[in-house]
Amino acid sequence: MTTSAPAVVGMPLAAVDTPALILDLDAFERNLSRMADALRGKPVRLRPHAKSHKSAEIALRQIAAGAVGVCCQKVSEAEALVAGGVTDVLIANEVVGEGKLDRLAALARKAKLAVCVDHAQSVSDLDAAASRAGVKIDVLVEINVGADRCGVEPGAPALAIAQAVGACTSLRFCGLQAYHGGAQHVRSVAERRAAIGGAVELVRATRALLESGGIACETVTGAGTGSFPLELASGAYDEVQPGSYIFMDADYNRNEFDAAWPRFEQSLFVWTTVMSRPNAARAVVDAGLKASSVDSGMPQVWQRPGVEYVKASDEHGVLAIAPGARPPTLGEKLLLVPGHCDPTVNLYDWFVCVRRGVVEALWPVSARGALR
Amino acid sequence: MTTSAPAVVGMPLAAVDTPALILDLDAFERNLSRMADALRGKPVRLRPHAKSHKSAEIALRQIAAGAVGVCCQKVSEAEALVAGGVTDVLIANEVVGEGKLDRLAALARKAKLAVCVDHAQSVSDLDAAASRAGVKIDVLVEINVGADRCGVEPGAPALAIAQAVGACTSLRFCGLQAYHGGAQHVRSVAERRAAIGGAVELVRATRALLESGGIACETVTGAGTGSFPLELASGAYDEVQPGSYIFMDADYNRNEFDAAWPRFEQSLFVWTTVMSRPNAARAVVDAGLKASSVDSGMPQVWQRPGVEYVKASDEHGVLAIAPGARPPTLGEKLLLVPGHCDPTVNLYDWFVCVRRGVVEALWPVSARGALR
Repeated sequence: MTTSAPAVVGMPLAAVDTPALILDLDAFERNLSRMADALRGKPVRLRPHAKSHKSAEIALRQIAAGAVGVCCQKVSEAEALVAGGVTDVLIANEVVGEGKLDRLAALARKAKLAVCVDHAQSVSDLDAAASRAGVKIDVLVEINVGADRCGVEPGAPALAIAQAVGACTSLRFCGLQAYHGGAQHVRSVAERRAAIGGAVELVRATRALLESGGIACETVTGAGTGSFPLELASGAYDEVQPGSYIFMDADYNRNEFDAAWPRFEQSLFVWTTVMSRPNAARAVVDAGLKASSVDSGMPQVWQRPGVEYVKASDEHGVLAIAPGARPPTLGEKLLLVPGHCDPTVNLYDWFVCVRRGVVEALWPVSARGALR
Repeated sequence: MTTSAPAVVGMPLAAVDTPALILDLDAFERNLSRMADALRGKPVRLRPHAKSHKSAEIALRQIAAGAVGVCCQKVSEAEALVAGGVTDVLIANEVVGEGKLDRLAALARKAKLAVCVDHAQSVSDLDAAASRAGVKIDVLVEINVGADRCGVEPGAPALAIAQAVGACTSLRFCGLQAYHGGAQHVRSVAERRAAIGGAVELVRATRALLESGGIACETVTGAGTGSFPLELASGAYDEVQPGSYIFMDADYNRNEFDAAWPRFEQSLFVWTTVMSRPNAARAVVDAGLKASSVDSGMPQVWQRPGVEYVKASDEHGVLAIAPGARPPTLGEKLLLVPGHCDPTVNLYDWFVCVRRGVVEALWPVSARGALR
C-alpha cells in the first residue's frame, strides 16, 4: 500500500503531481540552524521529536545539526528510525502489552533506547521483557506537569515509581519525562510562561524529593516548539524535545512568539491543483481531509491574499475567493500550509524535497502509519 | 512504508495488536444484505462508493451482492481497484491535469470506466487524452444540486457542457452526476427530505432540458448513505452511490433515520489498548488522531457506558470515566467507533476481519494513501 512517488529528482515543482507533501529545503535547513543557534553554549541537549516527521532522513540531519538523538511515541516508529540508521531513541511515551515490550527489548540490542513509565504494573512488565531479552533498558518516569494526559502525579507518587524502577534488575532509572503538551498551543506568551512556570516548579520539587531519597535524576526532558525557550531558560531541564520547529503549521503560526525567541519559518506544504471553478467566488482543490489534517483547523493558501480554504471534505477543499483577489485558474497548482503538521505528514509516503523550485530529493516517510 | 499486519488469521481478537482497524464480518455482511434488500425489484442500480473502503476485496463483495460496479474519487483509487479485479468503475469526480488524464485513459483499456466533468476546458482536455490513448471514455456531467462544491449549475449551463461532450470524438455522454453531499449529515429526516426534494427538481428539469435538446440522459447517479432512500423513491435517479453503509460511524449514527429505511449497524472499529490510568476519572488509550480521524467528532467507546473518549492528540486518546462506571484497566483493550469512517480507513494498511471473536481474514486497504 506504499504509493508511488509524485515526482522525480530534477523535476520542476510545477510538474510535481498533486496532492503531494512538499518540503522547502532552504527553509527546513534554516530552521535546523535556528534551533542549533538557540541551544549553542547552553547546558541543554536537543532531542527533537520524530513523531512530527517520521523520517530517518530528517532525524539524521537533526543529529548532524547537533541533536543527541530523537524521541518518538511508538515502538514501530523507533524500529523504523533505527532501521534508518538512528542510534539513540527515546520513546517519550508509555508502552503497554507484552508483544510491544518484547519488540522494544529486542530493539534495545541495536540502539541506545529509553522509554517512559507511569505505573507500577508497567515497570514490572517492562523489567520482565528486558530480562527475557537479556538487556538493560533506560527508563524515565513520566510526571504530569499540567497536560492531564499520561504521567504519574509529581512528588511522592513519582518517587514511588522511580523506586520501583530502581528495584528492577533489568531497568536503569534515568530521570523524568516532563512534557506540558497542553501549553504548546496556548496563544499568548504570558499564558505559556505561566503554564511552564508551573511545570518547572513541579519538576524541581520532584527532582529534589528523588535526590533526598538517594535517587539521582540524570535527565529531565520535555518541552515542545511552543514553549522550549522557557524550559531552556528555567535551568530545570537537561533536554528539550521540540518537533514541529522544522516544519511549522497554520496552528503554530497562530501562536504569539516572544521577540527574543527564534522564529521558525514555514517549510512544509501540501501541493494541490484547482480541479473545479464553479463560479467567480469559489474554487475547489484536490486536497481534502485525506491530504491535510483538519484537527487543528483548515489549511491556509500560501501567499495568495483573498483566497481562503474554507471547507474540507474527504477529497475536496473549497476555496472562497474574495472580490478583487487574483482568482485561481482551473488546473493551477497552489501551496497549502497544513493546519497541523504531524498528522498531515502521516498521510503521505514521500517528502518531495524542493530547493528553489526544483525537486532535489525524495525522502520516504519511513514510519508512516507506524501506530503500534 | 506499508506496515506489517497487526494480526494473523486464526488469532483471537484479544490477541490482535493495537491500534488496529477491525471489521466485524457478520455485521458487514448483514449491511450488504440490507442494501440488497432495499434495492430489490427497484429500477435503480447500486454503485457503492469505494472511497469509504479503498479495498478491492470489499468492492468485489459488494458486486457479488448485486452492485453493478463501484465509484471512487481519484485515478489512483481506480487503478488500485482495477488491479484488484474490479471491472466497472465510475470516478465520481473531476480529474484535472495531463498526467492524470493520460493514466485515466490508459485505465479505460482495462475496465469499463467513466468520469465526471463540470467545465468546458476539462471536456477538451479529457477528449485529447482519450484520443492520444485511442479509447472512448464515458462521461457524466456533474451538476450542483445544493452541495456547492464541484459541479456546473443545473439547466442551461449543464446543457452546454453536455453538448460540448457530445461534440467530442473520443467521449461519450452518459448522463448526470447529481450528488448532494451537503445533505448526508443533516440530522433530521425532514430536512434531508427537503434538501433531496430540491435536488430531484433540479435533476428533472436538467434531464428534460437535455432531452428537449435531443441529448438522451442514460444515467442519473448520486446519493449517499444518509439520503439514498429518498433518491430511490424519487424516480429521478437510475443509480445510487452510498459508501458508508457497510461500516457506519459515530457521525452517521447521530443521524435520525426514517423507520421505514434500512437500518445499518456498526461493523468498523478501532481496537485500542489502555496505556495509562493516571487517576480514577481518567484513562488514556493508544489510539489518537493518527488512528481515528476526528474531523467529524471524537470516536466513541463501544458498549462501555460511562466511559467517554473526550480528547484526541496525535497518539493518545483521553477517556473520561464517570463515577460508578466500570473502569477500564491498564492493558485492557477496547473497541472504538470512529467519528468518520472514510478518513479513518485511510490511516491503515489492513482490515483485520473478525467473526465471532476470531480473525478470519486480513484484507489490504489497497488504495490507502491513493490521493492522486
